[in-house]
Amino acid sequence: MLAIGERINVRTKLFAEAFKERNFEPIKDMAIRQVKGGANMLDINIGPARKDGPELMAWLVENIQKVVDVPLCLDTTNVEAIEAGLSVHKGKAMINSTSADPERLSLLMPLAAKYNAMIIGLTLASGGLPRDANERCALAAEIMAAGAEHGVPMEDIYLDPIMVPINGQQEQVKEILEAIRMFREMNDPPMNSVIGLSNISNGAPENMRSLINHTFLTMAITMGLTAAIVDTLDPAIIQAIKTTSVILNQSLYCHSYLETC
Amino acid sequence: MLAIGERINVRTKLFAEAFKERNFEPIKDMAIRQVKGGANMLDINIGPARKDGPELMAWLVENIQKVVDVPLCLDTTNVEAIEAGLSVHKGKAMINSTSADPERLSLLMPLAAKYNAMIIGLTLASGGLPRDANERCALAAEIMAAGAEHGVPMEDIYLDPIMVPINGQQEQVKEILEAIRMFREMNDPPMNSVIGLSNISNGAPENMRSLINHTFLTMAITMGLTAAIVDTLDPAIIQAIKTTSVILNQSLYCHSYLETC
Repeated sequence: MLAIGERINVRTKLFAEAFKERNFEPIKDMAIRQVKGGANMLDINIGPARKDGPELMAWLVENIQKVVDVPLCLDTTNVEAIEAGLSVHKGKAMINSTSADPERLSLLMPLAAKYNAMIIGLTLASGGLPRDANERCALAAEIMAAGAEHGVPMEDIYLDPIMVPINGQQEQVKEILEAIRMFREMNDPPMNSVIGLSNISNGAPENMRSLINHTFLTMAITMGLTAAIVDTLDPAIIQAIKTTSVILNQSLYCHSYLETC
Repeated sequence: MLAIGERINVRTKLFAEAFKERNFEPIKDMAIRQVKGGANMLDINIGPARKDGPELMAWLVENIQKVVDVPLCLDTTNVEAIEAGLSVHKGKAMINSTSADPERLSLLMPLAAKYNAMIIGLTLASGGLPRDANERCALAAEIMAAGAEHGVPMEDIYLDPIMVPINGQQEQVKEILEAIRMFREMNDPPMNSVIGLSNISNGAPENMRSLINHTFLTMAITMGLTAAIVDTLDPAIIQAIKTTSVILNQSLYCHSYLETC
């Protein structure tokens, strides 16, 4: 299970400023805290980054990989910034993301192949959000076909059913669980999948968010989810990941499995 | 989802004495606390009760149903005590339990039919614990056949895959999850299932038990579990039941769904 730390994000004012001023201290701090919390990968969300995206992403990748020994998930709509990050990244990076849009696929799949990177495929097309699990699978098939065409191994594609807030789109949440189960069955060995977890509790009261997040994560892992962009500073998230792993017999039970196993 | 309170149990010294002395106060107290905590059914475990089982069970059922308005799950190996409880029970009781043993089935299925009761069918035969999900399904088929023979509606049979401690039988835990999924598919409409949840964390450190319990419960509900004998005094258990229900779109989301929905 990939636990991808979500915290280094331009939508947080602290990091928007740190990115702009090339002030590495708060970024370093948050990278280390997330890995200590249990992240085995970090998302680096610089937003659209139209101005100096490539320089910013390369600067972030080089510096973050000096302080933590985990791969990074390069999160921006700026394709040049993705490539700049990939070109300096050590180990196997993840591209976040392509959609099922043919133009995006034709730009990003070749990058994944060239740099031997994992890539998130959002089951999203120009027509807006998918309406059910079947529409998500139809878009997943297009993403997989583009991956095959460009020589991206199926195990490097992480299908993303697009998390939505339960407050307002409740009926979609069950469809997302079902899509995760169906994604697995679209290939042998099963396809990987990923969600941006915290979006499910957007708009919910602050004191309810952790409960909704870790409960959905536990259910999604039960359905076969293999990666999630999560708040690894929330102990309930890491507990859910470790406990489901023991229950599914993927890691050995011992009394101290939360700490050591 | 049936949340069956586990606390009124002869294995607790307080209740062993209260049963013996026909002292209703501690029993009343625990019945009310469990229903306030979120139980919509209460398990009444009097053990083998070889001596005065029928009188004890009838006394318990009559008195408990005076103080709480929920059905009871009559838990004893003493068949006469089960019948004594059923004969005074108001509403739809649950028999806990028959195994797949032909003799037990021929004693208990007629009782379920006669009193229009639900009945727990342990997927257990004389050969010991089932070794995997397939063996559990084979035993489930025998239980269902006996139910059909004696006129028990399939929806009144709750198949129990037999929970085991993760400390020592870790590889069985995944089989139990898989059995819950497979039970559903053995009938249309899907068969009901039940587990004695807390057994999964028997032998685990006290401070780990709630985490292991509520994580497994969340996973089992995702697989289709429809009832569980649980510690309804543990808020994490009730939170898991209510949150999974909202995520599966079985009850409406509102910000205060833990309290009111």
